[in-house]
Amino acid sequence: MTAYTTNLDLDLVLERTVDVAPELVWKAWTTPELVVRWFAPKPWSTSSCEIDLQPGGRFDTVMRSPEGDEFPNSGCILVVEEGSTLVFTSGLAPGFRPQIAGEGLPFTAVIRIESDGSGTKYTATAMHADVPTKKQHEEMGFSEGWGAALDQLVDVAKSL
Amino acid sequence: MTAYTTNLDLDLVLERTVDVAPELVWKAWTTPELVVRWFAPKPWSTSSCEIDLQPGGRFDTVMRSPEGDEFPNSGCILVVEEGSTLVFTSGLAPGFRPQIAGEGLPFTAVIRIESDGSGTKYTATAMHADVPTKKQHEEMGFSEGWGAALDQLVDVAKSL
Repeated sequence: MTAYTTNLDLDLVLERTVDVAPELVWKAWTTPELVVRWFAPKPWSTSSCEIDLQPGGRFDTVMRSPEGDEFPNSGCILVVEEGSTLVFTSGLAPGFRPQIAGEGLPFTAVIRIESDGSGTKYTATAMHADVPTKKQHEEMGFSEGWGAALDQLVDVAKSL
Repeated sequence: MTAYTTNLDLDLVLERTVDVAPELVWKAWTTPELVVRWFAPKPWSTSSCEIDLQPGGRFDTVMRSPEGDEFPNSGCILVVEEGSTLVFTSGLAPGFRPQIAGEGLPFTAVIRIESDGSGTKYTATAMHADVPTKKQHEEMGFSEGWGAALDQLVDVAKSL
């Protein structure tokens, strides 16, 4: 029993079974050179990624718009369960430091990877502080964006 | 090498060697019935404490002023290294959920307990997002408050 659980009033969930092995999904999520290939839904791209895969470590990405504008995102890794669970948050800066308020939309991402036949049951949850933040994330296109990124992740995983 | 380190520009540190065994200091910090006996510097008191000692678990206290007003504080545990390191933050709600901005002074507490002869080297660090928050915490009486609480903790530990 973990201390973090989904609350459907506040959280957004993408759950899907994909036809690649769990090890490859984990590798695609935790290897910076692979993350840059799938993390941003096209026509956006990911111009850089830095991951220090331990609690307190950074999960940093820079997303680039089709116009070439760059948007850095910095997150703090909270849980690393090799091959099955990755949790990180934009609610803290790397090193567990409190975040300066007002920067971006704070959420905690819980990525769960489970074996399902020869494929993977993939569950990505975005946890929010309150209903308005959840709605804002939903209206920004959470389902489409995270869904399209997952399609790209599957393509990358299949190429490995 | 952990991913969280002190930055003296942003952090406040209380470091002292006390003449009680490390196991008792750990016990005093992680047992709710003991925390209520020392956590708030007198004449304040701690009217309740709830701890779920695992990453993502809650570290909640209610402090009571001499006038009887109650001030609840809710934190999220980040690191539990039995007997040596406890990290929790008010920058996230329990369960790793982002915190609603504007509630209280956000800081991450790193409590390190090391053996030092027959006593304990005790290091309590409060990490902040920026210099103004550090200064605010300093002016609220961090050193005096955390120092007085440590004196009370030592008294409790000696009584065990």
